[in-house]
Amino acid sequence: MTQRLLVVGGDAAGMSAASHAKRLVPDLEVIAFERGNHVSYSACGEPYLIGGEVSSIDRLVARTPQQFADQGIDVQLQTTVRGIDFDRRSVVVEKEGERTRIGFDFLMYSTGATPARPDSIIGADRAYGLRSLDDAAQLRDVVDGGVKKAAVVGAGYIGLEAAEALCHRGVNVSLVTSGSHVLSGTIDPDIGAAANEACRRLGIELVLSAPVYGITAEGVATGGDTIPADFVVLGVGTDPEVELAREAGIALGDSGAVAVNEFQETNLEGVWSAGDCAEATHRISRRQVNIALGTVANKAGRIAGANIAASMNGSAKARFPGVLGTAITKVGEVELARTGLTSRQAEAAGLEVVSGTVNGTNTAGYWPNAAPVELKVIADRATGRLVGAQIAGGPGSGKKIDGLAMALWTEMAVEDLAWVDLAYAPPFSGVWDLIHIASRRAAEARA
Amino acid sequence: MTQRLLVVGGDAAGMSAASHAKRLVPDLEVIAFERGNHVSYSACGEPYLIGGEVSSIDRLVARTPQQFADQGIDVQLQTTVRGIDFDRRSVVVEKEGERTRIGFDFLMYSTGATPARPDSIIGADRAYGLRSLDDAAQLRDVVDGGVKKAAVVGAGYIGLEAAEALCHRGVNVSLVTSGSHVLSGTIDPDIGAAANEACRRLGIELVLSAPVYGITAEGVATGGDTIPADFVVLGVGTDPEVELAREAGIALGDSGAVAVNEFQETNLEGVWSAGDCAEATHRISRRQVNIALGTVANKAGRIAGANIAASMNGSAKARFPGVLGTAITKVGEVELARTGLTSRQAEAAGLEVVSGTVNGTNTAGYWPNAAPVELKVIADRATGRLVGAQIAGGPGSGKKIDGLAMALWTEMAVEDLAWVDLAYAPPFSGVWDLIHIASRRAAEARA
Repeated sequence: MTQRLLVVGGDAAGMSAASHAKRLVPDLEVIAFERGNHVSYSACGEPYLIGGEVSSIDRLVARTPQQFADQGIDVQLQTTVRGIDFDRRSVVVEKEGERTRIGFDFLMYSTGATPARPDSIIGADRAYGLRSLDDAAQLRDVVDGGVKKAAVVGAGYIGLEAAEALCHRGVNVSLVTSGSHVLSGTIDPDIGAAANEACRRLGIELVLSAPVYGITAEGVATGGDTIPADFVVLGVGTDPEVELAREAGIALGDSGAVAVNEFQETNLEGVWSAGDCAEATHRISRRQVNIALGTVANKAGRIAGANIAASMNGSAKARFPGVLGTAITKVGEVELARTGLTSRQAEAAGLEVVSGTVNGTNTAGYWPNAAPVELKVIADRATGRLVGAQIAGGPGSGKKIDGLAMALWTEMAVEDLAWVDLAYAPPFSGVWDLIHIASRRAAEARA
Repeated sequence: MTQRLLVVGGDAAGMSAASHAKRLVPDLEVIAFERGNHVSYSACGEPYLIGGEVSSIDRLVARTPQQFADQGIDVQLQTTVRGIDFDRRSVVVEKEGERTRIGFDFLMYSTGATPARPDSIIGADRAYGLRSLDDAAQLRDVVDGGVKKAAVVGAGYIGLEAAEALCHRGVNVSLVTSGSHVLSGTIDPDIGAAANEACRRLGIELVLSAPVYGITAEGVATGGDTIPADFVVLGVGTDPEVELAREAGIALGDSGAVAVNEFQETNLEGVWSAGDCAEATHRISRRQVNIALGTVANKAGRIAGANIAASMNGSAKARFPGVLGTAITKVGEVELARTGLTSRQAEAAGLEVVSGTVNGTNTAGYWPNAAPVELKVIADRATGRLVGAQIAGGPGSGKKIDGLAMALWTEMAVEDLAWVDLAYAPPFSGVWDLIHIASRRAAEARA
């Protein structure tokens, strides 16, 4: 008898799971419920839709419902799951005001996350969030309407990219953060200084160390002045969408997101979860974390799909190997990237660390238009093992983080990193790569 | 009593050894003999001196003799070592026609390599080589003189870069190689096709599969036609400079270069060697190879310097961890990079391999000006372990090879590589990096 997989939430994690499971077990019935108007879209591309680099919403859609239908997957848009009844193995969905109950054999819980609107910010509802494609389209329309002055609250990836996008469109932007530098949750102050500088060079007004108390018709109320703005974008992080899960008895972890094991299994038999609503194991801190990034959602979703199939056909289970928190963005020509733990995160994880930093260039120093790059590696003092790395620098420097992520993944020590046979030619680096030099300095700092 | 280190040959390996040894043992007397006019220069930058990206020879000099003198290192330019007498622990040097004998306690043999001028090419002496800064200056003068038509024989890194440089200067260039594609010694034909295409797009005329028999006043004589040229650049590899070594009883390896162990020690007590004249252990084939790259010379030279110091002060010896043959270059906007073994080299090393290739872009597909990238990974069929990788693609793609070099260094399997937490944002890659996709395909090819 045909078995049925229901997918609750149709972006990266859910549709990766659906697609992979269907590929592995072609006679599986798969229905995906998505409350919005799009599935399988690039949320990371949204700031660039506003900024104008991306010309239309369609370009951000990786696969359309029709493409899924062609694969035999039934996508139900504008359909909200209202409840999950684990004992009866069914869900209640609502579409156009009408509720239906539908049974499942397997359930993929992939509801994602919503932009946080903390209670501590009075009037947070006045601000725009940036999550769905519809959010992005709405913000673009606002900009098209000819606003002059915007405030962005929160300087994480979304806040930063939104600020740059608005800047590109000629809007006067204030970026307001409680941190002493942009990306303060994910990079250290030294690299953060370069990130701040990049924002200022672009013409973004930074309002640092400014807790936000409210959003009013006039703008953003901080501890100091009110920052005037025609409209406000809120980018203070995301909250995993776990209400349905909680009600259904799906266990949550300490982070507040859905607890899963390495097979993406929840505590409930036949229920998997992945993506922004779920936890993942951080390979360095060994803690369960909730990192809302598309990279994680796609990979973990695919693992869930493999294991949904494995539960049917008895093949070996797939393991999700964990995350490093690797991420990258750019502000103007300055690329910002990070992996692993920051110095502060490392201390919080109980590690005593050293670091090595180098200020170099993105090419040989004598190459035309050599641009500055600051690269930092953080190592465990006791073992020398790499713990994290951060980069702020000119074109081509950001993706150097991938080499460091590889090193982190395989638990290399900075002593070894200093000698790896990396590529060199004058348009690309110095003969000693910045990774070598920073690693050597970190090794020396251990002595 | 002060001890004396003599350095035979003053480029990357020799001066790295000199400088590091002196730093570790400040009262060591160090004298470096260099037959040319410069020490410690970037040979890899020479094509760009001809091409015009680099404005003057001085910019390619990393450290001047005066800077070494300030560190207490005596650099003797235009001084040729004529013989090494190991038993008497002395060398004979010649400067301005005058010969002197000078004793040593320690000897660093770092003579480098010279452009190969094979006997099979009649009239090879008519061609220009490109090795020293003086060679580069001479070639630049030839171009400044207003030549119209050049032929470059050999399509390795130097040949390719020389051809591009000449192109930049408006010279009509034919690139002649016995290979079926450019870089045929270091990349496979599939990636080579993209490299060929890049050359043609730049306006370089490729003459492929053409063994060269002679260089005449008219141009280059191949098995087919004679390719007319006002002047010819020969870039068919380099020969390690080992004559002095052979005469002195320094053992050579099968590659023809100086045999060294992991401490850069030769067979003779108190004599070290490193750089283009010496062998190194290839970490994948486990064979001794002679790879004439600045990256290797700088690292191995530094190791030699550390061990020269260790032989005096009793500190622990440093080990050179080996090479992967990682290299990168560019032709116009197309970046070409490689690490490890090619498919053919892997077979020669007795490995049965599979590969995975992806044709993608250097950014998210929807990003403006997304440029094509072809990325290939090669894995051992039996274990899945990465064996090599190659890339041909648009801006930012070449240095992805470093991540693959890290993976190669730590003996990762493609099954693991497919899941590493790499950085993603639309200006930099797709959500699945090309490394993930190619690795997954290689893993599937094993099944």
